[in-house]
Amino acid sequence: MPIKAIAFDAYGTIFDVHSIATLADTFFAGRGPELSALWRVKQIDYTRLRTLSERYEPFSKVTRDALTFSARSMGLAMDEEQAEALMSEYDRLAVFADSAEALIRLKALRIPLAILSNGDPPMLHAIVTNGRLDGVFDHLLSADAVGRFKTAPEAYELGPRAFCCAVDEILFVSSNCWDACGAAWYGYRSFWINRAGAPLEELGIEPAGTGRTMHDVMAFVAAD
Amino acid sequence: MPIKAIAFDAYGTIFDVHSIATLADTFFAGRGPELSALWRVKQIDYTRLRTLSERYEPFSKVTRDALTFSARSMGLAMDEEQAEALMSEYDRLAVFADSAEALIRLKALRIPLAILSNGDPPMLHAIVTNGRLDGVFDHLLSADAVGRFKTAPEAYELGPRAFCCAVDEILFVSSNCWDACGAAWYGYRSFWINRAGAPLEELGIEPAGTGRTMHDVMAFVAAD
Repeated sequence: MPIKAIAFDAYGTIFDVHSIATLADTFFAGRGPELSALWRVKQIDYTRLRTLSERYEPFSKVTRDALTFSARSMGLAMDEEQAEALMSEYDRLAVFADSAEALIRLKALRIPLAILSNGDPPMLHAIVTNGRLDGVFDHLLSADAVGRFKTAPEAYELGPRAFCCAVDEILFVSSNCWDACGAAWYGYRSFWINRAGAPLEELGIEPAGTGRTMHDVMAFVAAD
Repeated sequence: MPIKAIAFDAYGTIFDVHSIATLADTFFAGRGPELSALWRVKQIDYTRLRTLSERYEPFSKVTRDALTFSARSMGLAMDEEQAEALMSEYDRLAVFADSAEALIRLKALRIPLAILSNGDPPMLHAIVTNGRLDGVFDHLLSADAVGRFKTAPEAYELGPRAFCCAVDEILFVSSNCWDACGAAWYGYRSFWINRAGAPLEELGIEPAGTGRTMHDVMAFVAAD
């Protein structure tokens, strides 16, 4: 069955979160990468806990809370200005070069494209605009619309609903293995961009495709 | 309002998971603590992902999967025998000395006691029996009964249902801050045994009480 549309995860998949560690390192010399890594772990933890417990808050709030916890946990004296600077970095993450190229080529093929992210609408609009990707995506789909974060079915349901097609006609692309697995569970054809060379999660399911960059997604779509 | 019953988390709260790192270290010299820590993180991750995605598997299966992932992720050549030995360690974890004392005293006060755990029934029965705690608990409540792991409301609901009282008449005790927060969200009076001196999670809620050992739980109950 041909791929009729593609939905992309945002953070880590299209956008490079590396710059957060760099900025954090200017504030807390030598501890930037550790803060960035812990922040990301807690951010994901909090999306899951809030969804499990039906205590939704927008991703920006969850992200800010995770930063507060992470800095405190590491014993860093982070002031409000530093926290705000780190938070605003999320609005202007660089676009991966391979992602920018692939998006342009997919757009030329007239395949409908979307972002399907935990990010709330203001975050997604800012990052797309700052990344000069205006007009590339047909839909910016946010978990905020359903008040549940991925991997809740309600969040993944946004894809087929927006594209008006069956879920197995949509390719879902993520650099987070758990996200690609969650999408596969939901029924997507999913592709894991394994940028870090990580092992597959042991969840009893595999993405339909795996590669190292967005170029591998292009090859997967072309072979379809 | 007096505390009418107490529900305890199991792993890390009543039972000490430290011996897992020790055994792992005999298999993979110098890497035991890292394997044990990663295993625990992935175990919790998988409970959350499976609950979010409505793909429940019993805790023993989730725990085994998390071990497989963790060993592979660390590049350890773990054979089936080693994996089984590590898994069976979960059935005979030591009881924390402060927990054993507190449970005996609480039992003498005739307060109804339960374990409310993600562990499946065979795991809970084994650990209680091997820890010589037979007859201490009025109920061994497993998330398996509802097919959802904590912090899903359905899992916490097992407490008031078993004790036949209002949730805010039950004290929920856990050494996992997220678990104490999840229980507080659900409506329990909750107590966090902060054995590791960790910072409070940034979830917009706090346990009703916090301490370092089960003795602090006793003091909390006595002051009630």
